[in-house]
Amino acid sequence: MYPSDGFRELDRQECLRLMARVPVGRIVHTRHALPAVLPVNFSLDHDGGVLLRTAAASELVRAVDGVVVAFETDEVDAAAQSGWSVVVTGRAAVVTDPTEHARLFQVGPRSWAPSPEEVFVRIAPELITGRELVGGRSVYGTRLAF
Amino acid sequence: MYPSDGFRELDRQECLRLMARVPVGRIVHTRHALPAVLPVNFSLDHDGGVLLRTAAASELVRAVDGVVVAFETDEVDAAAQSGWSVVVTGRAAVVTDPTEHARLFQVGPRSWAPSPEEVFVRIAPELITGRELVGGRSVYGTRLAF
Repeated sequence: MYPSDGFRELDRQECLRLMARVPVGRIVHTRHALPAVLPVNFSLDHDGGVLLRTAAASELVRAVDGVVVAFETDEVDAAAQSGWSVVVTGRAAVVTDPTEHARLFQVGPRSWAPSPEEVFVRIAPELITGRELVGGRSVYGTRLAF
Repeated sequence: MYPSDGFRELDRQECLRLMARVPVGRIVHTRHALPAVLPVNFSLDHDGGVLLRTAAASELVRAVDGVVVAFETDEVDAAAQSGWSVVVTGRAAVVTDPTEHARLFQVGPRSWAPSPEEVFVRIAPELITGRELVGGRSVYGTRLAF
């Protein structure tokens, strides 16, 4: 993302491998012209797309359907002063095709409390970027101090 | 943030108390018209302002100085299906006043590898919002499935 800062960029495969380790990521979008960000659980589609599952009437659907969003995941080990961060950026869309919806019932994220009125939101993997957060420094040159 | 979803909002004091538990948050801003998000370590100022410490020439400074950003922290316990998320939104600015800079040397975030060319960036606590992520559901009505 900021190559001049000189931190190790992760290739696409590394990014997807790391994302698969964590159950929750953060969806980043705009609301009332301000940045909005919130943790949600997700699963990864075969091509790196991010799959969310939400109530059809939820604010999330209204906020992100058809909009370019970022989806960030990370793991930071404060004791080891290391970690990584991966961001998938792309347009989010409610899955409307019945065949796709049925497929996602198999491979998509699970519901803890299933509801009859749920939809899947898919974030297209238009851009996948990742950085290793090297001990002592983040990718912006900030010092990770623990 | 989305009150109609009915999840427990956290008051300001709760938000600040929770933020103080974690060493790292995520700064959310815009870069080339796309959302950008990255983990950084931080400390909290007395009024809830978020303090970052970075190399003066870093991309971070160029990207956020004078810009409204969001700073998100969270803890999600997948096993317990619970957690929280707090977002501080406000204008970020490099601290230029020498007295303030000296103060922040005392109370601001530490450097693991100090550099002579460092600045503090302060995110003003113009808006502090927090949500409890209730087991099984996130604030958007997505089902947290673990």
